[in-house]
Amino acid sequence: MTGYAQPIRQLISELAKFPGIGEKTATRLALYILHTSDDNARKLAHSILEVKEKIHLCSVCFNLTEKEICDICADPLRQKDVVCIVEEPDSLIAIEDSGSFRGTYHTLHGVLSPLDGIGPDHLRIPELLDRLVKNNVKEIIIATNPNVQGEATALLITKLVREMNIKVTRIAFGVPMGGDLKYADRMTLAKSLEFRRII
Amino acid sequence: MTGYAQPIRQLISELAKFPGIGEKTATRLALYILHTSDDNARKLAHSILEVKEKIHLCSVCFNLTEKEICDICADPLRQKDVVCIVEEPDSLIAIEDSGSFRGTYHTLHGVLSPLDGIGPDHLRIPELLDRLVKNNVKEIIIATNPNVQGEATALLITKLVREMNIKVTRIAFGVPMGGDLKYADRMTLAKSLEFRRII
Repeated sequence: MTGYAQPIRQLISELAKFPGIGEKTATRLALYILHTSDDNARKLAHSILEVKEKIHLCSVCFNLTEKEICDICADPLRQKDVVCIVEEPDSLIAIEDSGSFRGTYHTLHGVLSPLDGIGPDHLRIPELLDRLVKNNVKEIIIATNPNVQGEATALLITKLVREMNIKVTRIAFGVPMGGDLKYADRMTLAKSLEFRRII
Repeated sequence: MTGYAQPIRQLISELAKFPGIGEKTATRLALYILHTSDDNARKLAHSILEVKEKIHLCSVCFNLTEKEICDICADPLRQKDVVCIVEEPDSLIAIEDSGSFRGTYHTLHGVLSPLDGIGPDHLRIPELLDRLVKNNVKEIIIATNPNVQGEATALLITKLVREMNIKVTRIAFGVPMGGDLKYADRMTLAKSLEFRRII
């Protein structure tokens, strides 16, 4: 794509920094920006800057927010003594969208990953432990993802709060609703049996 | 994705305007922008604005350029009397990247598409005819894409310049290099036979 004028090449290289966006897609996006209205392009550029300027982490739960304390933590109707622990804000949003949780959250912003040099100190675990004591939390629900790092992180948290007289639960893994057992993988079926309950 | 703070939702909706980018991908890109450095985000926003501000169409060939006349038209070594006609700047870049053309270009910025209300007046055809006369052009190579609209556009241009004593050629269509005849579709093979030449 060396044939494009310099400002276009610059834009392509900036867009190609997005994860999962290669040079071809970046070129397509850059040409869209060239074709769209000035107003649209200005709004996009403004939004990018605004997000960086206004969004920071909630001082209680480390959710993304434009306020000092996020809407969930500030809501007097949410149970402050039940804390759901998630890896990233996108997990939090997914659980919120399900509409089935009325407690509060704690976002770790990562999972244990020794190979990438990410240990307990790189996550928001010290802040979690602090909060558990201060807010007299009764239950933590560990909702890290069902993979090696997520499980290791869940295990670490379980160990750290063992002495604290807090109920520690893990979200259930099993066959997804609307799914079919014959298409479920072995690990999922094993988990589905492990998480079975009396009906 | 209603759970995100307002500036994030705004950014997601701006990013989702890109062609081929749905809300899920837009969310992923927005979260990347949140995680990247302030400097990276600033550079991206700046690039978007710069492209809109600086890039316009070459007054001769309607290629994208930051100058009054694009580098190709301004190059004294390029043959001004051989003009390759393309639909969009991306076709021009593809031909330039092949390194096998030393003439100049004319970008139509579209193709005939009566169903979308795009007729000859919406393309840069009047400017093309003007240019053919003024620059004493000897040959035009029509390099619109090999589909219904591209062929219709090629036919129209052929008709319009019939009286002008200009050699009109069409780029060849056939089996791509490195391809295999057994995988080529019927239309491609038919074109490949039609475009055959004596060796």
